[in-house]
Amino acid sequence: MSSTVPTPDSLADALDAVQSRSPLVQCLTNIVAAQWTANVLLAAGAVPAMVDNPREAGEFARIAGGVLVNVGTPYEETATAMRDAVGAAGDAGTPWVLDPVAAGALGWRTRLAEELLRSVSPAVVRGNASEVLALVGGLGGKGVESVDTPEAAVETAGALAGKHGCVVAVSGPVDHITDGDRLVRVANGHPLLARVTGVGCSLGALMAAFSAVTEDRLVAATAATAALTVAADVAAATAPGPGSFAVALLDELSRLTPASLASAVRLG
Amino acid sequence: MSSTVPTPDSLADALDAVQSRSPLVQCLTNIVAAQWTANVLLAAGAVPAMVDNPREAGEFARIAGGVLVNVGTPYEETATAMRDAVGAAGDAGTPWVLDPVAAGALGWRTRLAEELLRSVSPAVVRGNASEVLALVGGLGGKGVESVDTPEAAVETAGALAGKHGCVVAVSGPVDHITDGDRLVRVANGHPLLARVTGVGCSLGALMAAFSAVTEDRLVAATAATAALTVAADVAAATAPGPGSFAVALLDELSRLTPASLASAVRLG
Amino acid sequence: MSSTVPTPDSLADALDAVQSRSPLVQCLTNIVAAQWTANVLLAAGAVPAMVDNPREAGEFARIAGGVLVNVGTPYEETATAMRDAVGAAGDAGTPWVLDPVAAGALGWRTRLAEELLRSVSPAVVRGNASEVLALVGGLGGKGVESVDTPEAAVETAGALAGKHGCVVAVSGPVDHITDGDRLVRVANGHPLLARVTGVGCSLGALMAAFSAVTEDRLVAATAATAALTVAADVAAATAPGPGSFAVALLDELSRLTPASLASAVRLG
Repeated sequence: MSSTVPTPDSLADALDAVQSRSPLVQCLTNIVAAQWTANVLLAAGAVPAMVDNPREAGEFARIAGGVLVNVGTPYEETATAMRDAVGAAGDAGTPWVLDPVAAGALGWRTRLAEELLRSVSPAVVRGNASEVLALVGGLGGKGVESVDTPEAAVETAGALAGKHGCVVAVSGPVDHITDGDRLVRVANGHPLLARVTGVGCSLGALMAAFSAVTEDRLVAATAATAALTVAADVAAATAPGPGSFAVALLDELSRLTPASLASAVRLG
Repeated sequence: MSSTVPTPDSLADALDAVQSRSPLVQCLTNIVAAQWTANVLLAAGAVPAMVDNPREAGEFARIAGGVLVNVGTPYEETATAMRDAVGAAGDAGTPWVLDPVAAGALGWRTRLAEELLRSVSPAVVRGNASEVLALVGGLGGKGVESVDTPEAAVETAGALAGKHGCVVAVSGPVDHITDGDRLVRVANGHPLLARVTGVGCSLGALMAAFSAVTEDRLVAATAATAALTVAADVAAATAPGPGSFAVALLDELSRLTPASLASAVRLG
Repeated sequence: MSSTVPTPDSLADALDAVQSRSPLVQCLTNIVAAQWTANVLLAAGAVPAMVDNPREAGEFARIAGGVLVNVGTPYEETATAMRDAVGAAGDAGTPWVLDPVAAGALGWRTRLAEELLRSVSPAVVRGNASEVLALVGGLGGKGVESVDTPEAAVETAGALAGKHGCVVAVSGPVDHITDGDRLVRVANGHPLLARVTGVGCSLGALMAAFSAVTEDRLVAATAATAALTVAADVAAATAPGPGSFAVALLDELSRLTPASLASAVRLG
C-alpha cells in the first residue's frame, strides 16, 4: 500500500474527474436528507439516483458508479434494499459508502450497519467520532462515551479501516481520514455546517461520487471532504444565517474549480 | 392551575432555555416537511432526530427531550412507530406534541390521531381550526365545516384541552393557544407563511422543543409560536416571494434573541 | 378533436384559473421531490396534499382536483396507493398525471407505470425522451437507447397519446407536447433547471394542477410547462448557481401573472 498522502493536486484531479465524468450515484438514504443530498451531488457534477426499494436496489447497484448507504431513517423495506444493494455492489465491484447515522445510540441500525459492513467491504465509512467508535465495539475498543472527538477516534478509525480494508472518515471541526496506513486531516469548514440538516449525509454521497471515479479511495474521501468544506468556507463568508448559507453552499460547490480547490484546501 | 397568562418575559426565558440547553427532539413526521422541520429546529437551537421506525421509536422516546408526532403522511410502519413512541413517552414522562394534519378530511389518520390522543395525554395539540374541531367529534361538538376559524374553534379547543389535560394551539392569522383555563393570542405572522410547505409542521416540532425545557406548556406552545412568527415578520419585510422568505425565515430564527422576541411579540 | 394549437392567451387563461381557483392536487411522489413539489404548487397558487398511503389514497382521489403519480421512489405500500388513487380518479373523473421516472432503466417501476397507464387513461404523461419511449415498448417502437432526444421521441409520443387518449409531454431543452393530433413546442427554460433535483417532478404536479381547472389538457400541460420555464428564465438571469436559482424560481413563479406568461412564452 502506498504511503503517499493525498496532495492538493490529487484532490484537484479527483474533482476534475467528477465534473467531467458525472458519475451516477445510487443513494439509499434518509427522508430528511434525500433532497439536499441530490442537490449537493448535482452541484458537484454527479448524477443522483435514489433507488431504495428491494425490487430495484440490487439491480441498480450493478450499473451505478457508486452507492451510498445511509441508515438515518431505516425501515424494513429500505433495510432490505440496503442489504441487496451492498450485495450487488460487492458482486459488481461498485464502490459503496457506509454512513452509520446514530450508530451506538440506537440498536437496530447499529446492528444493520455492522451487518452491512461485514458483508462487503465498503470503499469508505463516514461518520462522526461516536458513530465510528460504535462500529468497533467488536474490536474491544474503548467505551463510546469516553472518546467522542475526531482526534480521540483516530486510532480506532485506523483499526476499523485495517480490519475492513476501507477508508474511514471521521467528521468534525477538523476531519480525519485514514486508510489504516495513511492519515489526512482537512481543516476547512465552518460551524454553520452543523446548523444545516443533512450536510454530513451529503458528504457521504459525495464520497460515493468521488470513489466512482478515483482509484485511491483515500484521495476520493479527502477530495469529497475538501470540496464540501472549501465551498462552505466561501459560502459562510457572506451568509447571515443557516438558510442563506445552505443556498450559497450549493452555489459555491457548483462554481468550485479543481484549481480553486487545490489552492484553498488546508491539509494536515 | 395558575391563571397567569404568558408574558413576553416568560417567552424570552423559554427561548433562552432552548438556545442554551439544545433539547433533543424526536420527530415522527411526514416526508414533505422532514427536512424543513429539521432545519427549523436547528435554527432555533434544538437538535432534531427523525426516528420513526417501530424498532427504534419507543427506545428513542425514552431518551429524547420531546417528541413530535405529525400524521401528515402516515404509513403502516410509521403509524406503529407513532404508537410506540407515544407509549414510551408516556412511560418516561417525555412531553409529546400531536399535529393531526388533515384530521377530519381523511378517515384513517383521524382515527389514528384520536387513538394516540386517548392513549397518553400530549403536552400540546397543534392544528388549524378544522383539524382541532375534528378531534372533538366525540365531545359532541359542532359540525366541522360550520366553524373553521381559530376564533370559532376557541371554545372547542378549550374543551379538548380540559379533557386531555393538555394545551391546544389553533393556528391561523392570529394563533389561539389555550390550556382550557387560560387563553393566549399571538398576532404576529405573515401571509407568506401559508405559501411555504411544512411551516405548520415545523411549529409543532418547535413546540416539542420548547416543551422539553419549559414546565408551563402554555408558555412553551406560546413561545414556539412567537419565535416562528416574529422571525417571519422580519423575514417577510424584505423577501420578494416564498422561496427567499423560507430562506430568510431560517436566518432570522437563528438570529432571534430572547430580548428581541420579548419586544416584538404581540400577545392578546 | 380540435386542431387549434394552444395560444399564449389560452395559457394565460389557464394560469389565471389556477391562481383564482386554487386546485387541490394530490401527489403520490418520491421522497426526494416531495417538499420541492409542494412548494412549487403553492407558488403557482395550487394546494398540495401528499396522500400516498393505501388506506386514504383512493378516498382522497375522489375529492382532489387533480392527482399526480410519480414513480420516483416506489415502495410496496405507495405502489398500492398509486393503484388505488388511479382507480378512484378513473371512477370520479379526476384528471391524473403519470410521471414514469426512470422507466426503461428499472424493471419494477416500468411495469408499474405501464399497469397504471393501462388501467385508467391519464390526462397527461410527462417524462424525458427515454422514459416516454420506454412506455411504448409494447407498441413495437424503436429501441430506447437509439432515440433519446425530445425531437426523436415526438413520433412515439404521438402514438402513445393516441393509444391512451392523453397528452404526452416530453421534457428537454425544448419541450414537446402532443395529444396525438396537435403538437406544441415550448422553447423557454435554462440549463440550471437540470441542476436542481425534482424540477421535472414538480412540472408533473403543475400539470395536474392545470388539468384540474383546464378542459383542454394540451393547453393544461403546455401552460404548466410555460409557467415553470418562463419563471426559470427570469430566475436564471440573476442566480449565481443552482441554490439561489431554486429559491428565485419559487419567487418568480409566485410573481408570474397571466399577462407576463403570455408575453414571455416562446411557442413553436
